[in-house]
Amino acid sequence: MPTVTIAQNILANNDAVAGEIQGRLAARSIRALNLMSSPGAGKTTLLERTIARLQGRVSIGVIEGDLETSADAERIEALGARAVQINTRGTCHLEAHMVRTALDHMALADMDLLVIENVGNLVCPAGWNLGEDARVVLAATTEGDDKPAKYPGMFAVAEAMVVNKIDLLPYVDYDVAKVRRQALAINPRLRIFELSCRTGAGLDDWCEWLVAFAHATPAGLRRVPGETPAG
Amino acid sequence: MPTVTIAQNILANNDAVAGEIQGRLAARSIRALNLMSSPGAGKTTLLERTIARLQGRVSIGVIEGDLETSADAERIEALGARAVQINTRGTCHLEAHMVRTALDHMALADMDLLVIENVGNLVCPAGWNLGEDARVVLAATTEGDDKPAKYPGMFAVAEAMVVNKIDLLPYVDYDVAKVRRQALAINPRLRIFELSCRTGAGLDDWCEWLVAFAHATPAGLRRVPGETPAG
Repeated sequence: MPTVTIAQNILANNDAVAGEIQGRLAARSIRALNLMSSPGAGKTTLLERTIARLQGRVSIGVIEGDLETSADAERIEALGARAVQINTRGTCHLEAHMVRTALDHMALADMDLLVIENVGNLVCPAGWNLGEDARVVLAATTEGDDKPAKYPGMFAVAEAMVVNKIDLLPYVDYDVAKVRRQALAINPRLRIFELSCRTGAGLDDWCEWLVAFAHATPAGLRRVPGETPAG
Repeated sequence: MPTVTIAQNILANNDAVAGEIQGRLAARSIRALNLMSSPGAGKTTLLERTIARLQGRVSIGVIEGDLETSADAERIEALGARAVQINTRGTCHLEAHMVRTALDHMALADMDLLVIENVGNLVCPAGWNLGEDARVVLAATTEGDDKPAKYPGMFAVAEAMVVNKIDLLPYVDYDVAKVRRQALAINPRLRIFELSCRTGAGLDDWCEWLVAFAHATPAGLRRVPGETPAG
């Protein structure tokens, strides 16, 4: 089974590089978040809103992962935050070596929080450790309320789920309670936020969680204040 | 470079199985469509509306590809159409051998059109030939109007693009003309449909194209009546 062996080697090598990234960030007390979702669920818009709200409280740097274009990094830089764009040129997820290269091009001084925005893909990114301290998955109310059940792997590895676009609930068939039940059945420890980047509803809770995450001591990283399983 | 060699072998083997599928379907004059999109763009709902409208005109069979659950195949069967569910258990795309196995479990008599609904993923499925005669990519107005530019591979391999959820245009930031321009810059021959599965707007044009596709002779498959690049 040569394919399996090679795949294992690739993943073991990825984990080694991820460990190196984790050490490098921990030495500077930088917390790292891996932000994942389907294409178009609103990852970059959530980052824009978050950076604007946390100005002066949390210094955020962003690594943007996309197949093509530097549009997302430009959106982040327009807010005055540090951003580096990775173009994977066809690869469907970020790998640790890509993040390591991006970090080589990033000023890390005085950074509190590094957000790695993964390629829009609800499947593949879940399998690749990038040296992050936590993973956040976005789900949008416009995607239908069956996504945790149909893409369980992504929800299993996440520490938090953001249900975005709740302003559109009147116009779509989406049962938030059903999505919460599905997601918590897969991952009972999942912290869940419901918000709208368009109206700002729910952004305060999300930002407070993020502030606590960014300032948590390494030992408390997976138990930041207020992080109790929501139901 | 053993990884590359093995990847090439896997793809070459996939193409061989895809050729076998194509021959098997052509012998029965069955046309095949590979339907692809992000998670939640509305593939299954489009199929439900299409099957209901074409009842008595086109006999449609469906292969449903999902990581988990048989929910989609159940939705198709509820309309009286033939459906087989593939669960990939983590694999982010359908491969030809999965389709071949599904066909072994499907009654093919009197079928005009086989629709293969791929795993929700705007990246990986584009690289895998399933023996289909044409590929259709769905984009939803709720996903943002930068998707062709950011995920060009999928739009490059498609014969048609369906812009779904146009009923939500008043509530989202989405410039349809911009998406058309992006998509046609990547693939000038792309046939473009704008529709809403919720209101039914635009479904007639889509269904007429599909009828022509289902009944086209093999030689005319990539030039079905009315298929001129839209702009």
